[in-house]
Amino acid sequence: MSEKEAVEEKPLTQKGLETRQKLLRAAEEVFGQKGYYEASIVNIAQEAKVGQGTFYNYFPSKKDIFDELIRLYNRELRLYIKEKMANIANYEDAQRIGFQAFFNWVKDRRNLYSIVQQAVVVDQELYRWYYDKLAAGFLKSLSAGINAGDFKNIDIETVAYCLMSIGHFLGMRWVFWEGKDVPEEAFDAAMTLIFNGLNNN
Amino acid sequence: MSEKEAVEEKPLTQKGLETRQKLLRAAEEVFGQKGYYEASIVNIAQEAKVGQGTFYNYFPSKKDIFDELIRLYNRELRLYIKEKMANIANYEDAQRIGFQAFFNWVKDRRNLYSIVQQAVVVDQELYRWYYDKLAAGFLKSLSAGINAGDFKNIDIETVAYCLMSIGHFLGMRWVFWEGKDVPEEAFDAAMTLIFNGLNNN
Repeated sequence: MSEKEAVEEKPLTQKGLETRQKLLRAAEEVFGQKGYYEASIVNIAQEAKVGQGTFYNYFPSKKDIFDELIRLYNRELRLYIKEKMANIANYEDAQRIGFQAFFNWVKDRRNLYSIVQQAVVVDQELYRWYYDKLAAGFLKSLSAGINAGDFKNIDIETVAYCLMSIGHFLGMRWVFWEGKDVPEEAFDAAMTLIFNGLNNN
Repeated sequence: MSEKEAVEEKPLTQKGLETRQKLLRAAEEVFGQKGYYEASIVNIAQEAKVGQGTFYNYFPSKKDIFDELIRLYNRELRLYIKEKMANIANYEDAQRIGFQAFFNWVKDRRNLYSIVQQAVVVDQELYRWYYDKLAAGFLKSLSAGINAGDFKNIDIETVAYCLMSIGHFLGMRWVFWEGKDVPEEAFDAAMTLIFNGLNNN
């Protein structure tokens, strides 16, 4: 505890920030490839090409660097999607772009996607935090669409959860499991379902 | 391997079937409460009130009983939903009933729901099998709705994945995390999204 506080309170130099970043990248690789339970601090330090003692200068434990990875990349993902969706005038188009951005992100950060899924076993609270936070990221763009009269005025948190869950499973099904892009036919079917519904008329 | 085959080949008496069932129920409890990595065969045997040697008469390893739980309950869940959906004449109503059945099932089999999520770390292939199989369970009722002209003729596997993912996340969000039923407002919003889409008009 006090060790953790010490770590957090110590302001990092440029070099320190770089080392911390190197450790996080290494942890992403190691947790992604070996899984949380098989991964060790020794593995992470080796992957980052630093000594084991150096690891402890930045993170008190394996669990702490795992938590930090998830928090950090939750934020990165949300910013990445937000950026892609910015300046898209049409609300439906913006959501579509958001989905594409998410699938690209899973493709680029495959290990990280696996790490988020590991959290369901490693720390259920953290896993919940991750998805609550991600769902919250939808609220602003959905509200804007509702306020403009483009989207139906239905329970917005549920809509956010539905969109997030569709993104999650299609990303898992195609990008993570098959190592492919989401096929156009599948993407179009999902978008038709989301924006126009399954019912004919 | 040969031990596993021996186990599978031995026809079980009524008492044997009961013991096997007891072990599976015990494993559901133990894996659900402790998680796969913390759970031991000793825990499972104790919970089932049988000797450790008895466990090995039925399952060669902890992983085998874990796999069997997931396969068995995948089948149970699909049959349960199918039964609830039978004899519902309207295709949309049948799907709605299917969702309610799934949420009830998560409520009744909380530990099992957790076990399926554990599979993402324990055995990714098994996790994939579980969801592929569940998605396949949607195909027949969706096809029937498409053929009747009630549902849009869009990529059916993707629709199945979308519906399954919405069920999964809402079940997780409300039933598993909060220990509540899915609120009516949330259920209605999800159904509106699925059947009528997010767009106004």
